[in-house]
Amino acid sequence: MGSYHRYELGEVVLQSGLTLRGATLAYQTHGRLDADKSNAILYPTRFCGRHEDNEFLIGSGMALDPARYFIIVPNLLGNGVSSSPSNMPPPFDKARFPKLTIHDNVVMQRRLLVEELGIERLRLAVGWSMGAQQAYQWAALYPDAVERLAAICGTARTSPHNHVFLEGMKAAVTADAAWREGWYESQPRTGLRAMARGWAGWALSQTFYREELYRQLGYSSVEDFLVGFWEGMFLSRDANNMLSLIWTWQHNDISANPLYGGDFEAALGAIKARTVVMPGRTDLYFPPEDSAYEVDRMADAELRTIPSVWGHYAGGPANPEDAAFVNARLAELLAS
Amino acid sequence: MGSYHRYELGEVVLQSGLTLRGATLAYQTHGRLDADKSNAILYPTRFCGRHEDNEFLIGSGMALDPARYFIIVPNLLGNGVSSSPSNMPPPFDKARFPKLTIHDNVVMQRRLLVEELGIERLRLAVGWSMGAQQAYQWAALYPDAVERLAAICGTARTSPHNHVFLEGMKAAVTADAAWREGWYESQPRTGLRAMARGWAGWALSQTFYREELYRQLGYSSVEDFLVGFWEGMFLSRDANNMLSLIWTWQHNDISANPLYGGDFEAALGAIKARTVVMPGRTDLYFPPEDSAYEVDRMADAELRTIPSVWGHYAGGPANPEDAAFVNARLAELLAS
Repeated sequence: MGSYHRYELGEVVLQSGLTLRGATLAYQTHGRLDADKSNAILYPTRFCGRHEDNEFLIGSGMALDPARYFIIVPNLLGNGVSSSPSNMPPPFDKARFPKLTIHDNVVMQRRLLVEELGIERLRLAVGWSMGAQQAYQWAALYPDAVERLAAICGTARTSPHNHVFLEGMKAAVTADAAWREGWYESQPRTGLRAMARGWAGWALSQTFYREELYRQLGYSSVEDFLVGFWEGMFLSRDANNMLSLIWTWQHNDISANPLYGGDFEAALGAIKARTVVMPGRTDLYFPPEDSAYEVDRMADAELRTIPSVWGHYAGGPANPEDAAFVNARLAELLAS
Repeated sequence: MGSYHRYELGEVVLQSGLTLRGATLAYQTHGRLDADKSNAILYPTRFCGRHEDNEFLIGSGMALDPARYFIIVPNLLGNGVSSSPSNMPPPFDKARFPKLTIHDNVVMQRRLLVEELGIERLRLAVGWSMGAQQAYQWAALYPDAVERLAAICGTARTSPHNHVFLEGMKAAVTADAAWREGWYESQPRTGLRAMARGWAGWALSQTFYREELYRQLGYSSVEDFLVGFWEGMFLSRDANNMLSLIWTWQHNDISANPLYGGDFEAALGAIKARTVVMPGRTDLYFPPEDSAYEVDRMADAELRTIPSVWGHYAGGPANPEDAAFVNARLAELLAS
């Protein structure tokens, strides 16, 4: 996974009231922090992504250029690299791993930046999918610390339909008796494959399949794509980690904290960052209308829909055209 | 389920080469066949629907008025009323029930009409969802026998994305070890509940959930809707029947037969019926663009998209406004 750091936070009391003991944020950095500490960019990971999965938007000559910026990529709690069900020692392992919110993640990331790296302000907070959720929460929780915000195929609050989609995914993996309420010794493989097949329909659009764009990813048929890409990816994951992250995702709401007390519109309105929100035109679980709602309630936000038929994957590395679109918007935002 | 008839076809050789022994089409009729047998309407059932589920579009003063028309509602093979995994005696029961195509259904329905009811021509073939698939197949297979065609939230060929959605549903129910490859003694309830939760995200739109329209159906929250409506409905069904119907749905293609040899455009072009195709604007598994493609390749077809946020359910009884839209289009079509 390349070189990365581990920041030990000790005992962290969570929103739930439980304590995460031996809390660890794994993170990777690119570039160097400049003398006045003004070139920091935070770029958190997505669902089940790890820091190296973010590298497709980082590079020389790109918007996120390590020659210009100090880019911090923290791993989401529950992703198997930061503290997770799969790496926590008993008794808080597996099914007893505490439920974590996006807010919990962001508070810990803030400590990493301030206490460990000495960074008070961000030039930009950016993320795709659950990464966007974290970036949104940063901008709402620390409005003066986030100069710019870029949310790619992700929302500030999980919509009811998105919640239902995730209920279907949870039900698929937990229908496998081998899951054993989380106390499995080996992975519930049938359940992971079932979730993979279910997810395949949600992550990519109707048009993606109609135009056989899986061929661009090296798959020869729908079934080859379902097995080779989807089942293969999900079999490499830990079921409890995925369920932990799904809980985090389902409970995403930038206003679900004492600062905003559930007033979602107030939390959106408090964001000071210059913002670009980039939903995918054909994203089935973060449809553009949810992003439009959020943009309308922010002080300085622009909606730039990715004109893509790659569904939710418009925000990722799969289609170079989409990544180029996102990169161009990030360059504009950083130049503004 | 109200009074209905059973038409016994004996041994029927299927497209697969297998023989369906003791083949039975259950059907209900409304109204009376007129003297010159010119007022017949065929209105087949949808996925897991039974004849009584079609009654919402039938009634005095409605387009499908039993005072004017003789309306035949055949039950889809596999739906638990016509020949199905759940009602077939050994050895062709349960997991050994033969795979059935829409073509198999339509050929048997044709025999019912010609041999049993003496009907050679249809004033209209109409259906919702898998009902639309059967209506399409009728119009393509017997172009001179179908004067009018109305396809509601359904297509003439299952799209690759729709296939993937159904793969997810199959994987969810079969992830339950209680399924036992179809040889269960009692239903795989965990798997049925998992499939129900998965299906809930597909059948209704993002906007449906955002606007909490499940309240109009008598449910107080998303979770209440998932358990009360979806799990309740799926627990009343037989897993093998559902899997049989899903196979039928996945293989739907009006050209997958000797007459058209897989030439889908030729099959569409052969349809002579005056046609109205009504996709739902927000249907996630039969999106309007698939219907537009089909309308463009038919001789006398019109696209009338249902302006609904009820997703696939725009074609059903759930939202009275949508049912009124559909009824109005059927009235126009029958008057033309």
